[in-house]
Amino acid sequence: MSAIESVVENYVASWNETDPARRRAALSASCAADARYRDPVMTGDGLAGLDAMLAGVQAKFPGFVLKRISGIDHHNGAVRFSWSLGPAAGPSVVEGVDFVLLSGDGRFASVVGFIDKMPA
Amino acid sequence: MSAIESVVENYVASWNETDPARRRAALSASCAADARYRDPVMTGDGLAGLDAMLAGVQAKFPGFVLKRISGIDHHNGAVRFSWSLGPAAGPSVVEGVDFVLLSGDGRFASVVGFIDKMPA
Repeated sequence: MSAIESVVENYVASWNETDPARRRAALSASCAADARYRDPVMTGDGLAGLDAMLAGVQAKFPGFVLKRISGIDHHNGAVRFSWSLGPAAGPSVVEGVDFVLLSGDGRFASVVGFIDKMPA
Repeated sequence: MSAIESVVENYVASWNETDPARRRAALSASCAADARYRDPVMTGDGLAGLDAMLAGVQAKFPGFVLKRISGIDHHNGAVRFSWSLGPAAGPSVVEGVDFVLLSGDGRFASVVGFIDKMPA
């Protein structure tokens, strides 16, 4: 697995990891200390802010799983991949694409999510 | 037309404007002085660098037109839109999506293009 694949997989794992210590470890492995997340419905700043954001998503939507549904496209320190969120076994509820800027050490510095599918 | 629509339309116009003064005016209307462009095959830095990049594309692919082929999706100072590049009348040659971060005054500060369709 390439370094970028490993970082992306750790980031996806952080969304699905409900054990606080393991979630935080997955975030630390994938995101810079001052990493920022923005999408149309939520934001998080720094590892603690991202961790709180994910804990909130997991509490609000128990059992939902984030899945990467595209390849990992990257160049010039920027990455994009598409994802779905929903029950592990059912159809997705939300789908979107994350645009990521990497930090100097290859972890996520900034994530901007755009939504491609959202319940009405 | 909203401010964001106007900025995006000026940016798209800059790709298609072959008159140097009008191309530079369209760039100034859409991009910050220190704006950066990155895609897998070209880069440009600052208005002069972007202008030279566009002049190069126009010289290499005379008659090609950049068309926006999606809506303008934006939140939190970030924008995405899809585009095609090719002859005005024919099928597109290249298609992709631009992911943009806006400057404080609403112009493009950073453009990262990802490719969705490219000749083999």
